[in-house]
Amino acid sequence: MKIVLDIYGGDNAPDAIFDGAIEALKENDKIELVLVGKQEYLTRRMESVDENLKSRIELAFAEEVIENEEHPSTAVRRKLNSSIVVGCDLCKTRDDCGAFVSAGSSGAVLTGALLKIGRIKGVLRPTLISTFPTVVGGKVLLADSGANVDCKPEYLKQFAIIANEYAKHHLGLEKPRVGLLNVGVEPGKGNEVAKAVYEMLKELPINFIGNVEAREYLSGNVDIIISDGFAGNMLMKGTEGAGMHIMKMIKEAIYGSTRGKIGGLFLKKPMMKIKNMMDYSNYGGANFLGCSKLVVKCHGSSKPRSIKLAIIETYNTMLKNIQTYIDKAINEVDISAN
Amino acid sequence: MKIVLDIYGGDNAPDAIFDGAIEALKENDKIELVLVGKQEYLTRRMESVDENLKSRIELAFAEEVIENEEHPSTAVRRKLNSSIVVGCDLCKTRDDCGAFVSAGSSGAVLTGALLKIGRIKGVLRPTLISTFPTVVGGKVLLADSGANVDCKPEYLKQFAIIANEYAKHHLGLEKPRVGLLNVGVEPGKGNEVAKAVYEMLKELPINFIGNVEAREYLSGNVDIIISDGFAGNMLMKGTEGAGMHIMKMIKEAIYGSTRGKIGGLFLKKPMMKIKNMMDYSNYGGANFLGCSKLVVKCHGSSKPRSIKLAIIETYNTMLKNIQTYIDKAINEVDISAN
Repeated sequence: MKIVLDIYGGDNAPDAIFDGAIEALKENDKIELVLVGKQEYLTRRMESVDENLKSRIELAFAEEVIENEEHPSTAVRRKLNSSIVVGCDLCKTRDDCGAFVSAGSSGAVLTGALLKIGRIKGVLRPTLISTFPTVVGGKVLLADSGANVDCKPEYLKQFAIIANEYAKHHLGLEKPRVGLLNVGVEPGKGNEVAKAVYEMLKELPINFIGNVEAREYLSGNVDIIISDGFAGNMLMKGTEGAGMHIMKMIKEAIYGSTRGKIGGLFLKKPMMKIKNMMDYSNYGGANFLGCSKLVVKCHGSSKPRSIKLAIIETYNTMLKNIQTYIDKAINEVDISAN
Repeated sequence: MKIVLDIYGGDNAPDAIFDGAIEALKENDKIELVLVGKQEYLTRRMESVDENLKSRIELAFAEEVIENEEHPSTAVRRKLNSSIVVGCDLCKTRDDCGAFVSAGSSGAVLTGALLKIGRIKGVLRPTLISTFPTVVGGKVLLADSGANVDCKPEYLKQFAIIANEYAKHHLGLEKPRVGLLNVGVEPGKGNEVAKAVYEMLKELPINFIGNVEAREYLSGNVDIIISDGFAGNMLMKGTEGAGMHIMKMIKEAIYGSTRGKIGGLFLKKPMMKIKNMMDYSNYGGANFLGCSKLVVKCHGSSKPRSIKLAIIETYNTMLKNIQTYIDKAINEVDISAN
């Protein structure tokens, strides 16, 4: 199965994306890519690609780019020759294309996926699942991290079902601990949506551990956090921001004095480890799960390394056949889907 | 003007609250307190209080305590002899009581304030405003940080007006930069509420700087962040949690090896500074503004020091007569209030 890669998504496109693609092909010789972008650029870059990699690269030309400022659904409807639309169409129509990866405008990628690739039958809204490392060494999934900003309780119920399948089959967790993001741990807390979702999650055949507060995100006490995309986005970016700002303060403390510099030398290794953990550019991308093909949204500021990681991660997810499990779980477990 | 203090609020009550009260009285000899709590406890503790402080302490007895697990409005309606209800009643009925301070159940404190003390005329919903330090040395206000979890756009519009007055008159900012918490900076982003609020804030006579992402919370690029209480709570606690977890990892890095310990010695001072900045127990409390008296909610885990800080801060806020400014701003600026 090939991965369709949007060369024109993100702040550092197209070079960072192209370079990341080549790195991924070098690192895993099973990966095959369809690169989508402007003909002139792709043709020129391909000239200097090693011959042994070329056989695993297919080109698809798209001469338009959807910018971040554009209204997503208008752009997807009008720019039919954009890398996002062409890429999604390829995924939809070709059986040998299993995934679409882009670092472009979040709204446009998700709209393109919804309108062009389409949902798995029964899925009300696909959910954007972000993965973050915890302080105890594991991972925590956040569903939804920003795709669905206005949610009905039924959507969040399905986010839980979808994320649960992903955690089981991709992360290999037998009984993922699923928590509902809320303002307090007691049942009955929260806004109207959270209160309704709480009652729904209790009834699902999942390991629902109740409400969790935002402070628990990195604790390792929960594997999957369920939220509407608006509050989830605040949790994710608030955490990223705090990490970024604290690491900046530490850097200033270290470089601000001779004492600091000496201390910094002794603590270099563990500090780098913490910095890397908090650096979201080290994580490939977020999975937009619930579409009939895998869709992966990379960070807009992605550099070659994060694109490489995202492609390799997407390849591994593709092997697990997550779509089939989601289809089964949604249509067997969730009667509201039928 | 006296401050009414709930002795029975929080995890460390009543001792931590009583001790904090005494410390505040010692630190500022203008402060006068009404301590609300069980007669037996208060009478016993008063025996060992310095004579010169006693004249600034009044006692009010309340034999019941509202627990965190209780449903706020039911508890406030039924436990009429609880410290929260008695304290709020005192504020309502006595002109010489200007503020109510509690570290008790958030829901009960806010419900008590709403039902017993009441709102300033024209205020749709009082808002819980939390203050956090920024990395550039200033402060950032978050309105709402968890009191109003289901919001209409009109509420957030008023949160902006209220927080703007607070920032001007209490923090002394001439033109506070007001940002709307959102999933992206471009106009048109966000959920239905955020989109509607954006249009409203544009029309207000405030320094509205547009949408801000959660990553900006500690940056110092914004003075006031407007949000519904659900998403705001995720931002606040997500940031606190990230700070707590990162500091824990750093501590482990320092104590985990001899090299680390040496490095830690050299970096002790700046690290303590960062730790203190991220430690929310160093901040007095959150203001629930829009009620006819000041209402301050302290952290449930408050220790004597945070209670002391909250009392002193409340006293200073009381001097500024914030209520009058809010009343004027709401009723002059916001026609939806009339």
